[in-house]
Amino acid sequence: MGLIVQKYGGTSVADIKRIRNVAKRVAETFEQGNDVVVILSAMAGVTDDLIDMATQITESPDKRELDVLLATGEQTTAALLAMTLKNMNHPAVSMLGHQAKVITDCTFGNARIIEIGVENIMDFVKNGNIVVVAGFQGSDIKGNITTLGRGGSDTSAVAIAAALKADICEIYTDVDGIYTADPGICERAKKIDRISYDEMLNMASLGAKVLQIRSVGFAKKYNIPIHVRSSFSEEEGTMVVSENAGMESLVVSAVTHDKDQARITLKKVEDQPGVAAKIFSPISESGIIVDMIIQNTRVEGQTDLTFTVPKDHFSTAMEIERKVAQEIGAEDVLGDKNIAKVSVVGVGMKNHSGVASIMFSTLARENINIMMISTSEIRISCIIEEKYTELAVRVLHTAFGLDEED
Amino acid sequence: MGLIVQKYGGTSVADIKRIRNVAKRVAETFEQGNDVVVILSAMAGVTDDLIDMATQITESPDKRELDVLLATGEQTTAALLAMTLKNMNHPAVSMLGHQAKVITDCTFGNARIIEIGVENIMDFVKNGNIVVVAGFQGSDIKGNITTLGRGGSDTSAVAIAAALKADICEIYTDVDGIYTADPGICERAKKIDRISYDEMLNMASLGAKVLQIRSVGFAKKYNIPIHVRSSFSEEEGTMVVSENAGMESLVVSAVTHDKDQARITLKKVEDQPGVAAKIFSPISESGIIVDMIIQNTRVEGQTDLTFTVPKDHFSTAMEIERKVAQEIGAEDVLGDKNIAKVSVVGVGMKNHSGVASIMFSTLARENINIMMISTSEIRISCIIEEKYTELAVRVLHTAFGLDEED
Repeated sequence: MGLIVQKYGGTSVADIKRIRNVAKRVAETFEQGNDVVVILSAMAGVTDDLIDMATQITESPDKRELDVLLATGEQTTAALLAMTLKNMNHPAVSMLGHQAKVITDCTFGNARIIEIGVENIMDFVKNGNIVVVAGFQGSDIKGNITTLGRGGSDTSAVAIAAALKADICEIYTDVDGIYTADPGICERAKKIDRISYDEMLNMASLGAKVLQIRSVGFAKKYNIPIHVRSSFSEEEGTMVVSENAGMESLVVSAVTHDKDQARITLKKVEDQPGVAAKIFSPISESGIIVDMIIQNTRVEGQTDLTFTVPKDHFSTAMEIERKVAQEIGAEDVLGDKNIAKVSVVGVGMKNHSGVASIMFSTLARENINIMMISTSEIRISCIIEEKYTELAVRVLHTAFGLDEED
Repeated sequence: MGLIVQKYGGTSVADIKRIRNVAKRVAETFEQGNDVVVILSAMAGVTDDLIDMATQITESPDKRELDVLLATGEQTTAALLAMTLKNMNHPAVSMLGHQAKVITDCTFGNARIIEIGVENIMDFVKNGNIVVVAGFQGSDIKGNITTLGRGGSDTSAVAIAAALKADICEIYTDVDGIYTADPGICERAKKIDRISYDEMLNMASLGAKVLQIRSVGFAKKYNIPIHVRSSFSEEEGTMVVSENAGMESLVVSAVTHDKDQARITLKKVEDQPGVAAKIFSPISESGIIVDMIIQNTRVEGQTDLTFTVPKDHFSTAMEIERKVAQEIGAEDVLGDKNIAKVSVVGVGMKNHSGVASIMFSTLARENINIMMISTSEIRISCIIEEKYTELAVRVLHTAFGLDEED
């Protein structure tokens, strides 16, 4: 008995039949005596359809109006689920972002939550209602509708769970948990029972697309346990919890990969103060996020500078850097889209040396060349040729003892 | 130069191409130096699609949640039009019902507007924006989303025009004005240049489906001129204005018909106090609107009672009356769905006798039997057999001198 926040993703509410299935699950939790607040995504595909509609008008639709448009997706599912629950004779009520007082800044399309005024939700909960909140959306202090960016419903859910001091935030999705690697390319991958916020933060940014990374940051900050699980089965999924919550500390918890990267190299850049700013300022001003940066050893006052950007922004970034290269007198700009990032993640790394050398030698044994390396406290990432991605994931998975036993 | 409210119906915003067309029209009016506030319906068919979706869940979806669902239709078009205008470099902003402070009572599905707080709209107008308001929707004082019923965007438009003290409310639709009869069945019907609020009120309720009747009541109360016209042509349409605005007073302005009626007769009802209440209370409690009622001459303390209801509610009403008949000891309940109502409307009737006798003799000449009659100050309606509808409209149109000259 407690206060449970449940979030259902787009595939879980993709049609009326699935919404009925979600309603059944919600009702079960409610009938066990829990207070239940549900956060919903739009039906799978709907957000993309709405964006398509807007881009028929213009390639870069006004961001305020795009948010008004996109917010209809979650409004629809919230109304339909509340309707279904009421039809099952459960007291239920839908709430939109502004009604639930999800107050954000005014960065349309990628707004940050400033605060959540819980009274509105709690009034309904205290009166015995199941509250169904439209995810992904909020409003700024002037009452403009905002959205939280791709996967924003996860952040809605965790933020609301935090504001309500919920006992747990359950994220229902179409996979049954977090895996030690992508099961699609590594058949020996196994489901992780418990994982820390920090590991999840490192995995999310590396392509484990189960949770929006911002939601994990929120959960960590407010120490809200997240249970990632499938809405299509009764099985337990993966608990995302704080590090000291009694996990066995594996050296490496998972191997992840990310093919959505491209590499840009500026050849023979003058190694002088201010040059890096000239190279990276116009990139960040275009809203492009640079992931890894390496600078070669200086030769005769010159150096090669290499960095990675998301594939989508590759051509824009190349254009920008060609101009920059002329300005700063770099010799050439080279680009490469056929790369991938492979990473190993694990809190255990903090206390174990030798992880990096196992990773490098494992890749070397397969003749996989490492183009770039970056590390954090609990993660080591290598950029390799894209065609070796699957091979690299599999051999690393085996090397770090993650393979499921037969 | 003034403040112009324009409302565009569902067929005018049915797709992106048509929304562009609307944007062009709005922009022209704006560029002429006018302040412009636009009210939009949902894309044609969308509201029905949403209702279909809800009725997949249950035949009688929860009304609060249905309003949340339906409100997405106008939210979508408002966002798309504002986006289009901005892409044309016109300052524009969309507003939803609650943002525009359209405050209603809490009768979900058929809410009444209580007040409109104009500051929000006027702030944007004064800052040089074209304001695009989602029609059909509002919110109650608690912030619940409400909708105004079928055709409610007309009422949104006129109510906002009244609140803003607009110079005119232009209703853009897929017909080019109000006609003296349905041109589909009476090819000599002609467009009316000016018509009074009262005539329009009588026509709207009788099946001239161009304007929601409540919007005309609003326009009359606040004396807002309405210009009904086509969004697909440049031609002037029909002005709906107050009676003294210099119209020539025709005896009959139009002939209308309504096939959406069914007749129910209770045979041999005891003619005693309280019987009528027993017959009509359960009908009105079911939300069924009774239009015409007649009671035959009393014979031996008994009478036949006949009334009409919308065809959609015929079977429900029959069921109710069969129970009532048993309770009050009526002999039988008869039903007839093959009827139609034909009416002549005109403010000139106030000062002319003989309109009724012309109507009756014209119908008699064609051997059309009159089953029921009802009259108001400026309207005479007859219930006839449905199969004679078109014939009746045409002969009455000719008899009252409305035929277009060749």
